Amino acid sequence: MRQEVDDIHRQGGTIAFVPTMGFFHEGHLALMREGRKRADNLIVSIFVNPTQFGPSEDFKSYPRDLDRDIAMAHSVGVDCVFTPAADAMYEEGHQTYVDLTGLPNHLCGLSRPGHFRGVATVVAKLFHIVKPQVALFGEKDYQQLVIVRRMAQDLNMDITIVGVPIVREPDGLAMSSRNTYLTPEQRRSALALYESLKLARERVARGITDATSIIEEVTAFIGSHAQTKTDYVAVVDPQTLEAVDRIDSPSLLAVAVWVGKTRLIDNTILSP
Amino acid sequence: MRQEVDDIHRQGGTIAFVPTMGFFHEGHLALMREGRKRADNLIVSIFVNPTQFGPSEDFKSYPRDLDRDIAMAHSVGVDCVFTPAADAMYEEGHQTYVDLTGLPNHLCGLSRPGHFRGVATVVAKLFHIVKPQVALFGEKDYQQLVIVRRMAQDLNMDITIVGVPIVREPDGLAMSSRNTYLTPEQRRSALALYESLKLARERVARGITDATSIIEEVTAFIGSHAQTKTDYVAVVDPQTLEAVDRIDSPSLLAVAVWVGKTRLIDNTILSP
Repeated sequence: MRQEVDDIHRQGGTIAFVPTMGFFHEGHLALMREGRKRADNLIVSIFVNPTQFGPSEDFKSYPRDLDRDIAMAHSVGVDCVFTPAADAMYEEGHQTYVDLTGLPNHLCGLSRPGHFRGVATVVAKLFHIVKPQVALFGEKDYQQLVIVRRMAQDLNMDITIVGVPIVREPDGLAMSSRNTYLTPEQRRSALALYESLKLARERVARGITDATSIIEEVTAFIGSHAQTKTDYVAVVDPQTLEAVDRIDSPSLLAVAVWVGKTRLIDNTILSP
Repeated sequence: MRQEVDDIHRQGGTIAFVPTMGFFHEGHLALMREGRKRADNLIVSIFVNPTQFGPSEDFKSYPRDLDRDIAMAHSVGVDCVFTPAADAMYEEGHQTYVDLTGLPNHLCGLSRPGHFRGVATVVAKLFHIVKPQVALFGEKDYQQLVIVRRMAQDLNMDITIVGVPIVREPDGLAMSSRNTYLTPEQRRSALALYESLKLARERVARGITDATSIIEEVTAFIGSHAQTKTDYVAVVDPQTLEAVDRIDSPSLLAVAVWVGKTRLIDNTILSP
């Protein structure tokens, strides 16, 4: 990979990079299509990163299908798929981590301790290997996007971080590799996440700006669906991720919901 | 700086980098001379990094003399001296740190909590700005050298880390910007550090391999000098920095001593 990257740079080429955990869906392909437009060379990594999974999380069962992924990547013009092995990424004696002191203490970071330390560390590592000018991240993992952007700025990385809008199924469910875990009944309940975001947008459009009443209504709506258990429903500042009381400027509504044993997330901007 | 670095890389040039806190002495110049040999372009940074000083340490009083430093740097062929401002290096909202879980829990890290987090973070930042192929660090700050090397390896930084031997005054005192703090009496006592390392090497040459007896003798020797207070005397594995009981392979003897209000360090390899 390093050889390939150095050859590109020697020839004055530019690199767009999409780091992923594989098992591609249209959301990943949207990142790749956007990357394709932004540089001469498009590199995608597939690495299910052990350090961003908690001990009771789905690292082992996370869906994988490398052959299918490579075919899909090539179909949208990816030049190179980078698939490092876990023991090459984390050698014996590995002990260096990149961590943020503020942004992980919100939303998913609260129920997934250490998750964003793992994310920031592996993204920094991949950036050092791939040396891109541009890197693309989905807005579905909104907190991840904000954290990677902050990391790149704080550590003076000379990389433009681009966020790409959420891609949804025809009925509105946000695309996720974890959707494959859902039973048919759970798949129906999972739509509650998207429906609840729409509900909140309607309320705000009608002039409701009190975050607490929005949160209560969204939580109740989701809770009325079979097999759901809300992890969080939050209205936060889109930059700092701190909770807001009143939606008097564009605010992020973010939800995380267990549907059966599958944890799903979704978000939208609420604009008053 | 970024413009300059990109121009160099566009023209296929290589960069050697010496990050410093300024107030140059022969030790810094040795790093620069070594860097001069290893790349087409030699960049030196001068930045007294606030995040690596503890609240009761000498950040404010740390000696500075930029005009003299720039003249000295140019005299050994430095192409560019980079002197960022503290508020440019740490913008409002900065919250990203690089930290290691093992190596800082030894030697200086024990008496300077957070010090190596500050070092690793600022070195990562400077590496991202200067984009060197080679970076040079003095062996006097041995723990720092090991930590930077580990960080570069763990985070897949494509940078060769070079350690440069300690440069000493004619009588043996290791060069340090902090030597300027010493009164004439303290300056005489400070020689105890180097003398104690020589003593230990003699003992090992005569077949003594018990680390405890070496440590005791070194500690007693230093303690017999006016105004000294030993912070630590340790015999450790040169890679892991873990204490060793028996010197049956090359081991690092490291000492940190308060001489008056000045904390000095020195080290040597003990080879059986």
